[in-house]
Amino acid sequence: MADAAIRFGIIGCAEIARKVSRAITLAPNAKLAAVGSRSYEKAARFAAENNFPSDAKIYGSYEAVLDDPNVDAVYVPLPTSLHVRWAVLAAQKKKHVLLEKPVALNAVEFDAIVEACESNGVQFMDGTMWMHNPRTAKMKEFLSDNQRFGQPKSIQTIFTFAADPDFLKNDIRVKPDLDAHGALGDAGWYCIRSILWVADYELPKTVIALHGAVLNDAGVILSCGASLHWDDGKVATFHCSFLSHLTMDITAIGTKGTLHLHDFVVPFQEKEASFSAGSECWFNELVSGWEPPPSKQIVTTDLPQEALMVKEFSSLVEAIKVKGSKPEKKWPTISRKTQLVLDAVKASIEKGFEPVELGN
Amino acid sequence: MADAAIRFGIIGCAEIARKVSRAITLAPNAKLAAVGSRSYEKAARFAAENNFPSDAKIYGSYEAVLDDPNVDAVYVPLPTSLHVRWAVLAAQKKKHVLLEKPVALNAVEFDAIVEACESNGVQFMDGTMWMHNPRTAKMKEFLSDNQRFGQPKSIQTIFTFAADPDFLKNDIRVKPDLDAHGALGDAGWYCIRSILWVADYELPKTVIALHGAVLNDAGVILSCGASLHWDDGKVATFHCSFLSHLTMDITAIGTKGTLHLHDFVVPFQEKEASFSAGSECWFNELVSGWEPPPSKQIVTTDLPQEALMVKEFSSLVEAIKVKGSKPEKKWPTISRKTQLVLDAVKASIEKGFEPVELGN
Repeated sequence: MADAAIRFGIIGCAEIARKVSRAITLAPNAKLAAVGSRSYEKAARFAAENNFPSDAKIYGSYEAVLDDPNVDAVYVPLPTSLHVRWAVLAAQKKKHVLLEKPVALNAVEFDAIVEACESNGVQFMDGTMWMHNPRTAKMKEFLSDNQRFGQPKSIQTIFTFAADPDFLKNDIRVKPDLDAHGALGDAGWYCIRSILWVADYELPKTVIALHGAVLNDAGVILSCGASLHWDDGKVATFHCSFLSHLTMDITAIGTKGTLHLHDFVVPFQEKEASFSAGSECWFNELVSGWEPPPSKQIVTTDLPQEALMVKEFSSLVEAIKVKGSKPEKKWPTISRKTQLVLDAVKASIEKGFEPVELGN
Repeated sequence: MADAAIRFGIIGCAEIARKVSRAITLAPNAKLAAVGSRSYEKAARFAAENNFPSDAKIYGSYEAVLDDPNVDAVYVPLPTSLHVRWAVLAAQKKKHVLLEKPVALNAVEFDAIVEACESNGVQFMDGTMWMHNPRTAKMKEFLSDNQRFGQPKSIQTIFTFAADPDFLKNDIRVKPDLDAHGALGDAGWYCIRSILWVADYELPKTVIALHGAVLNDAGVILSCGASLHWDDGKVATFHCSFLSHLTMDITAIGTKGTLHLHDFVVPFQEKEASFSAGSECWFNELVSGWEPPPSKQIVTTDLPQEALMVKEFSSLVEAIKVKGSKPEKKWPTISRKTQLVLDAVKASIEKGFEPVELGN
């Protein structure tokens, strides 16, 4: 595969880019081709520390990566506020775009990115890695099974982590001019995506932020939650925070089954992940035990989920590059829906926790 | 112990009374002494089917049980709307009261029960069995450990079960004149109690029902949820329903730790119960796994939790009867707080999901 491998350029040397560089190295159909930073030295150090091949290019600017004819696709781990500028420019330079989440400051900005990708015929995908874990497909089989799970009724998701004082003072995720959505963008993004994933990407009709959102002095969200409501009576809640211990839950309850997992964003282990599936559980005769109890399902994977993300993205890029296929619209579509709900949560907080209606 | 055993009378032959009859039989300091029903035949059949000792009395009325001088305590599994009448009368007859939940239609009614118990020097306890599982004490150790759990920040609890069409049409829990609180009283009670338990029984300042509550034609709640808010920023949500698959979750997130369990009301098995405790979990170097992951804690018990409830209640009764001790106020106090929050959720639903303020 090495010759046909999709050649990645990375613009920006964020911490998360280390994980994705490794993923590009691990993916059988991708290779690291270039890295650009505002500082050449920083880019060179990043390449050296992240096992870039010797023929990879080092650039002292993002533009140079976009101008490199030997780069097929760019991975963009820049702060959210820079996404629209660099993702649009990348698309205009005919580079396929793997963009970190949250994808934009709002859906209007995101639409500019999508428009640029569509008009330039390049693939778009956001960096929501857990979507690509084989566990996710296995869980979806369960959720789609009318006998085992039935119709979804209630979904709860949580992603919290306890940021240290330095993070809470200095990280880009607490700065209004960088990752302006704070915990909602960094952690809530995943919660919203997982809710939409359970709901087969049907947008909720109404979004209402929960009271008690915590904002820092600059107005950036450190902790918040919301409830989401569909016309069919389905209800979801989520909670995201920089102020609580590391927790990553999906709880999905259907008419006939229940799904639980506690490591949905980053599995406890790379190569093996599990979830709990209960189906038509009931009580024993004296209501002193369950028959049957839920069971633990284990899914193994040779490649970590981030490498599977790169592999999937690269397959789509290869199909466009080699076979002249059209870009896969699923990925920008679900990114956009996630962003729409995120925008609605933010609007609800700004309106004093009033309901915000969403169109479809 | 047989001679000193606390002698129980049961008024009403509800389904749940079968489980509690067995629990009284199993508890080393309790015994079944009498059962009363509006029908003598029904009481006799109940006694025969539930291993009542041959010297137990069978009565064709509730009053007769309360008038039996060889009954120390009564277990009251009657519909909620009958609680105030029969619990007050039992106390007036100097019978100690083990009362099914929800304890009353509202806190005003419950206060009448507490007043009757206090003025007659009898013990009160509600039938919230999971409080007495040794797992509960073990979990509380974890939650109280400032190093392992820290300060509570976020609590989510769920109790749902999928009632069958007959239940949804005919069960007393969907009848406004019987168990008028529906799913909120039957399942939400446990959710609220578990939230208060995590919060060391500090009442929330504000309670807000979530949109999307489902009521039947008679106005009885079939599904609802709420968020609870404390002055210190702690937030809790719960969801209860008769319309979704069997699910029983507590998720408690502190600054340093996370607790999970999925069978809090009725453990999967009688004699062994577990929970998951994560403490100062973080990511590995590339954020592709957890270090350490949460661990599973297993707690065993010789007696099922409902027998431990009867044992604890009987110990308190024995202390009053034999040593002249005062009734333990902890139990009516936490019942009352649970009822206050339940009342607030109901008020919020009735007000169109507006916030309801609670005093302390």
